[in-house]
Amino acid sequence: MDIFAIQKKLHYFAQARNWDQFHSPKNLTMALAAEAAELLEIFQWLTEEQSKNITESEKDMALIKQEIADVFIYLARLADTLEIDIEREVLAKIELNEKKYPARSSKNNAIKYNRR
Amino acid sequence: MDIFAIQKKLHYFAQARNWDQFHSPKNLTMALAAEAAELLEIFQWLTEEQSKNITESEKDMALIKQEIADVFIYLARLADTLEIDIEREVLAKIELNEKKYPARSSKNNAIKYNRR
Amino acid sequence: MDIFAIQKKLHYFAQARNWDQFHSPKNLTMALAAEAAELLEIFQWLTEEQSKNITESEKDMALIKQEIADVFIYLARLADTLEIDIEREVLAKIELNEKKYPARSSKNNAIKYNRR
Amino acid sequence: MDIFAIQKKLHYFAQARNWDQFHSPKNLTMALAAEAAELLEIFQWLTEEQSKNITESEKDMALIKQEIADVFIYLARLADTLEIDIEREVLAKIELNEKKYPARSSKNNAIKYNRR
Repeated sequence: MDIFAIQKKLHYFAQARNWDQFHSPKNLTMALAAEAAELLEIFQWLTEEQSKNITESEKDMALIKQEIADVFIYLARLADTLEIDIEREVLAKIELNEKKYPARSSKNNAIKYNRR
Repeated sequence: MDIFAIQKKLHYFAQARNWDQFHSPKNLTMALAAEAAELLEIFQWLTEEQSKNITESEKDMALIKQEIADVFIYLARLADTLEIDIEREVLAKIELNEKKYPARSSKNNAIKYNRR
Repeated sequence: MDIFAIQKKLHYFAQARNWDQFHSPKNLTMALAAEAAELLEIFQWLTEEQSKNITESEKDMALIKQEIADVFIYLARLADTLEIDIEREVLAKIELNEKKYPARSSKNNAIKYNRR
Repeated sequence: MDIFAIQKKLHYFAQARNWDQFHSPKNLTMALAAEAAELLEIFQWLTEEQSKNITESEKDMALIKQEIADVFIYLARLADTLEIDIEREVLAKIELNEKKYPARSSKNNAIKYNRR
């Protein structure tokens, strides 16, 4: 199943509940940012090392999976509303980043990375 | 191309630059939330109506496309790091939502919607 | 009571619990953004008009008050950790904004406002 | 100068530019979250240790000061719009937290802290 197929499912889901009225691009950016922030909450007091080992906690992982799904869902809805092809834009962005950050000169380079 | 193929591309991109060291789950949630917030910034002073008509502005749309790509990129990286299958989790979440919000009783129901 | 007095209270609170170890600037920005996003969640599906009338709902207002307090608390902690004088910086920023957005030319000007 | 005095200044600033029309609570939560996220961006690739040493970089500190001021400004505007007394709510929240997290049992307790 690809991104379009998921967007179609989400579209019908919203339509069947007459929830399209709430899904203006403005509102969807709010929902997207709110869901992304729930991931922050999970990791905010952990060290980076602890954040890597979170995979060992089934309970935390179950929560993270739901939040990742929620972020994806609102991102997919937003793109759908604005008729943006996520996959195409992601591939274009990766190509752009390949030019902006050539592997050789960017290697190991935290400073360059920080100025992104 | 599916989500896994994009994740693979992003993985090699990070690896070639030795940027994996920055991509702890903790750091990636920060980058994800920061990118989601850039979308907020675009829409914050617009009315909902104006937010729908933003598709008419080529300049705004070019910016939105990049931000949507950025959110997707960090979400894909985060899921990859934690070995989470985004598509699987999204489909599971949609199924869950179908039970939680039956079409009939949720129809047009802003109050129910607000309490999500 | 001024901002410094509140920061002192918060400092002792963290110290008494040995929670300073969690309060790195990095972690505090995560907590700050997470709390700010909880306010987004309250308003995301409301129209702007409904958002103004939220003052009529005691229950919503009780929640908003707590979230506003939480945002302030983490902002105050962050500034304290970095030895930044919030009041001084706010007054400097207002002065800067007065130069950047002269009342006459900025009046009613959504476009100028949007480009902030 | 106290928080009220700053809110008054900000109120006149907005009024003189006829910008009150943009300052619905909904929009202000978006601006607040967007500004908080700019702080995330500064710290996202730093280690916690590096985040503490950021005080040594005049350039980074100048940026952080502006972002902290911006967060405060939108928080103050939001509270003003909803007629919420920030100081009162912060003091009430601190009192609540003192009951929820007694110093003795919360000491050094990351787990308790994480479940906040």
